[in-house]
Amino acid sequence: MIELWELGGRDGRRYSLFSWRTRMALRHKGLEFETHPVRMSDKAAIAFSGGKTVPVLKDGERVVRDSWSIAEHLEDRYPDKPSLFGGATGRGLARTFNSWVDRAVVPAMMPAIVADIFERIDPADEKYFRTMFEGFLKCTLEEARGRSGDALARLRRVLEPMQAVLKRQAFVSGEAPAYGDYILFSVMQWARITSLQELFDKSEPVSLWRERILGLYDGFARNVTTA
Amino acid sequence: MIELWELGGRDGRRYSLFSWRTRMALRHKGLEFETHPVRMSDKAAIAFSGGKTVPVLKDGERVVRDSWSIAEHLEDRYPDKPSLFGGATGRGLARTFNSWVDRAVVPAMMPAIVADIFERIDPADEKYFRTMFEGFLKCTLEEARGRSGDALARLRRVLEPMQAVLKRQAFVSGEAPAYGDYILFSVMQWARITSLQELFDKSEPVSLWRERILGLYDGFARNVTTA
Repeated sequence: MIELWELGGRDGRRYSLFSWRTRMALRHKGLEFETHPVRMSDKAAIAFSGGKTVPVLKDGERVVRDSWSIAEHLEDRYPDKPSLFGGATGRGLARTFNSWVDRAVVPAMMPAIVADIFERIDPADEKYFRTMFEGFLKCTLEEARGRSGDALARLRRVLEPMQAVLKRQAFVSGEAPAYGDYILFSVMQWARITSLQELFDKSEPVSLWRERILGLYDGFARNVTTA
Repeated sequence: MIELWELGGRDGRRYSLFSWRTRMALRHKGLEFETHPVRMSDKAAIAFSGGKTVPVLKDGERVVRDSWSIAEHLEDRYPDKPSLFGGATGRGLARTFNSWVDRAVVPAMMPAIVADIFERIDPADEKYFRTMFEGFLKCTLEEARGRSGDALARLRRVLEPMQAVLKRQAFVSGEAPAYGDYILFSVMQWARITSLQELFDKSEPVSLWRERILGLYDGFARNVTTA
């Protein structure tokens, strides 16, 4: 049995960015799994993992934490299922892409939606969330909301190379989706689940690509509680 | 026979960023080739290609232009030689990475080194170069030099995700170099051939990775005329 621990928000929302990478990777591999919602402030719930962050995956007796390590685990443990990386070069490039998304795209998305996220987390996490994110942002959540227009403009500049490539190929990973797509998609899904803002016009390449990902696996990522 | 048309600068310098992708791809495939230096302002020399930019590759009777198209041509034409992409997923991810490098890294590097490049181009290209790059930059080359400290700081921020991933794996493409590496390396080689500035400390992950690439194929990229 495969179990996934991930953040739980209001009304059953599963808004953890990094957990969405794992969710999509599990569906890509065609693996069934059960999920456990965890509050952001509840480190005791995942202490068994040896870490303080979700996602945590338990696959039989094996516990793996960190979305990248989980992806590698799934690829190596289930080599006969559809590949997440398409080989060693694809794995290396996916890790490079992961680094860019985590260090350029996530920090650009966060200030654009952080005040919206706050309204959809588990109420028991509010104090914890405010302290942590106001520390990251060096401003209050309310100030961040006031500047979200600037943040969105910056996010759009950061994602411009993705608009360009997704005009030319259907997926980040080429003609078919793979883990590279789920890395970027996780950031879009984070926004979709937590914010009512329309970040992109429906006709833009990034939006059309997001629709393709939302349609995968019988609409697995589409059919969840969103903002 | 394989022939490559690329920019020629002072003292035999081959400083064309995009041509370095092709050069490294040819060496990766173990293919011999001859090169033809072209002045940036001399569109007649490459008119046979149907385009106005180098690199242009002539492989037997086939003429291919644009570094990405050339890489795909080499991969498809020489499938039994070492792979540039490692399969369809790696090809897709490399194209995505190519879009990021072209639209985020190249525009960040350019203002940091543009005044240095100007001093090393073919003297017959000076007027053409100044007009084109001052148009891109919306300032004079001399003003760009005055602001190169800010430009370098920005470049360093853009490349921070590469520092992070190259701490964890030896190459952009994982454990072995492939086309993804040559995409990013081309920007570093452009700077190395045209500028005396030390953009990175020798001990930084990006510098150590650059050294690994310079050592490939008997020091092919190391043993050229540099700044």
